[in-house]
Amino acid sequence: MPVLTLASDFGTRDGYVGQMLGVLACEAPAGTQLVQLTHQLPRQDVTAAALFAEAVYRRFPPGSTHLLVVDPGVGSARRALMVEADGQRFVGPDNGVFSLCWGRTPTVCAIDLARLPNRAAAGTRLSSTFHGRDVFAPVAARLAHGVPLAQFGPPVHDPVTLQLPAARYDGDQALGEVLHVDHFGNCITNLRADGLTSAIADQVLTVPKAGLRLPLQDHYAQVAVGAPIALVDSAGRLEVAVRDGSAAHTLGLERGDQVMVELSDRDSL
Amino acid sequence: MPVLTLASDFGTRDGYVGQMLGVLACEAPAGTQLVQLTHQLPRQDVTAAALFAEAVYRRFPPGSTHLLVVDPGVGSARRALMVEADGQRFVGPDNGVFSLCWGRTPTVCAIDLARLPNRAAAGTRLSSTFHGRDVFAPVAARLAHGVPLAQFGPPVHDPVTLQLPAARYDGDQALGEVLHVDHFGNCITNLRADGLTSAIADQVLTVPKAGLRLPLQDHYAQVAVGAPIALVDSAGRLEVAVRDGSAAHTLGLERGDQVMVELSDRDSL
Amino acid sequence: MPVLTLASDFGTRDGYVGQMLGVLACEAPAGTQLVQLTHQLPRQDVTAAALFAEAVYRRFPPGSTHLLVVDPGVGSARRALMVEADGQRFVGPDNGVFSLCWGRTPTVCAIDLARLPNRAAAGTRLSSTFHGRDVFAPVAARLAHGVPLAQFGPPVHDPVTLQLPAARYDGDQALGEVLHVDHFGNCITNLRADGLTSAIADQVLTVPKAGLRLPLQDHYAQVAVGAPIALVDSAGRLEVAVRDGSAAHTLGLERGDQVMVELSDRDSL
Repeated sequence: MPVLTLASDFGTRDGYVGQMLGVLACEAPAGTQLVQLTHQLPRQDVTAAALFAEAVYRRFPPGSTHLLVVDPGVGSARRALMVEADGQRFVGPDNGVFSLCWGRTPTVCAIDLARLPNRAAAGTRLSSTFHGRDVFAPVAARLAHGVPLAQFGPPVHDPVTLQLPAARYDGDQALGEVLHVDHFGNCITNLRADGLTSAIADQVLTVPKAGLRLPLQDHYAQVAVGAPIALVDSAGRLEVAVRDGSAAHTLGLERGDQVMVELSDRDSL
Repeated sequence: MPVLTLASDFGTRDGYVGQMLGVLACEAPAGTQLVQLTHQLPRQDVTAAALFAEAVYRRFPPGSTHLLVVDPGVGSARRALMVEADGQRFVGPDNGVFSLCWGRTPTVCAIDLARLPNRAAAGTRLSSTFHGRDVFAPVAARLAHGVPLAQFGPPVHDPVTLQLPAARYDGDQALGEVLHVDHFGNCITNLRADGLTSAIADQVLTVPKAGLRLPLQDHYAQVAVGAPIALVDSAGRLEVAVRDGSAAHTLGLERGDQVMVELSDRDSL
Repeated sequence: MPVLTLASDFGTRDGYVGQMLGVLACEAPAGTQLVQLTHQLPRQDVTAAALFAEAVYRRFPPGSTHLLVVDPGVGSARRALMVEADGQRFVGPDNGVFSLCWGRTPTVCAIDLARLPNRAAAGTRLSSTFHGRDVFAPVAARLAHGVPLAQFGPPVHDPVTLQLPAARYDGDQALGEVLHVDHFGNCITNLRADGLTSAIADQVLTVPKAGLRLPLQDHYAQVAVGAPIALVDSAGRLEVAVRDGSAAHTLGLERGDQVMVELSDRDSL
């Protein structure tokens, strides 16, 4: 059974997601497993969507098709993309949402609106505000049938690439910032455990805004309930958390706030 | 594979949706594709649910069964309905939630609680607060098996019909109001593009409450980030939006607020 | 088609749920029906998760596998459990989340991390913050294949059991408290209708904090919109509600607040 995933920032209080699901139910191959990943991505936040894509899509089996719509530029001249990489296919806007999840040699094509499948049959005009329903879903359904990307548009050699703020690794020090605040209020940074030169157990993370120096730990339960903690998250990035609470709320942290890691005499903390 | 969709205002922090899914997993035909459309419809808001149904259900293939539970009158004398229209089947309360989505000649029957399927087998009393689980889900599962509506109750000739506030089209002017505020804060009105006598590009939408006169545009990216815009939405209705922001929040708009469209010398704006 | 359900407190703004779904799409049996029950369980609230499990899982068909991750102790020494009871299988942390839903004679085993399936193939280190992805999902997928629990770890004879606050039934009186506030603001108590000695229609529920005496009713529409009401909920527990509104908000109620039921001359109310 082919897998077709669906993710967006549409929320679910309106009918937008339902309309896309209807198009997919009509046009995807019989037996397709429709997997709704989320519709609660932060509104029009391309960075959050790109981090989502980076974490999620490589977990799916080859042959999957992924539809991701966070699309503040809908209706403008921004291109609509189809990508094939590592045996998986991706469909969505050309604004960088996919740029953290492609392998080395993706095949990228733009969707030519004049070649959209089933326009005549659908009997509806192409909206300028809802390409998720009118462009991305019909194309994703066709790709899930195994149709080659080239059928719906020409190659693209310069897809938009998102530039995450770069961390600076400098000997025993590393300087980074908060990239994302998750559902629990955990603050994920752009510092990677595999970028540090010394063992995790020897290092300390500093959060200047909160006036905190936190030894790097292994798991949440190593500190008391309500206490702050720094540790390596499940994607290999350093995160600042509060046990059974929200670091963002308790410590007043948000995207862009600085953090620093250094080798330290932890006994002095 | 038959499609059975599920939508409600139950939210997902409790077990209500899970219980319905369990009943459907037990009683729907093998191979049914269970599609959860949303459980975040605004609480007990029949108008929002009816707009949802209007937008969504016609996108699904004939043969689908749709279960929609927004049911503030549960347990009272309000009827429970089964409807067949355009090859699709609908199950839910008789409060108008379906009244915008039926074709011209729907077949409508009321569910007779004495004829509910599997009551004995279920071994549970019929609750007076959760007909989604005890009435609508078992009946929807049977209809998805192809059982005729008439098996579970008598015909109904006067289903409750929702009256949306009517727009007034008067020559070059049209007077309407905000029907719905969506997830993005876009304010959807009851003015339809196909009710206007002149070309979109020649017209201006006025929002008295916000003191705004907005030329009708084609897509969000035609104005600056944070600026208000009026355009035709993906269902053919006029909407007031703020680019990459919330019109409801920024402009203080809510359901019922007046809007007006008129032919205008746009160069004077 | 085997059913594999998924519930968590992960929310859906991040990629956590998507990563678990990817693992399940790779490792569960072909044709598995993946049913997402909720990811909006209250954060790190084991009591709410246990009440969810109690209400939901018995509705599913035998042969189902249920994955439930509300896991504030992730990465600590808390055990990870597999359970088989009444033909259904459960996978999740050993913190009491399942303890209200097992039948009399469950088979319980602990997951031995050294015996996790597919570790080598996955090629990723075992995270200490995301056992939903790295431990529970791969094991649930294997159990859905029919693999015996004992393959992944030793028997457990003392799984953690949650103690809900006990109600006191004393002749014509019963003393209880609010267990849970649901999505609608309904306040579910630990008083059970089947624990009361007299007919519902003869009794009155008192809410001292709100200064209310409410005759027990049958369904919401028996009182005016905005009025408080006490009734038996769909799980057989007494609840305090406000018609078409939120009892928690309107009456200022929260988990732990006392309620009392007594036989009463209802005509005097």
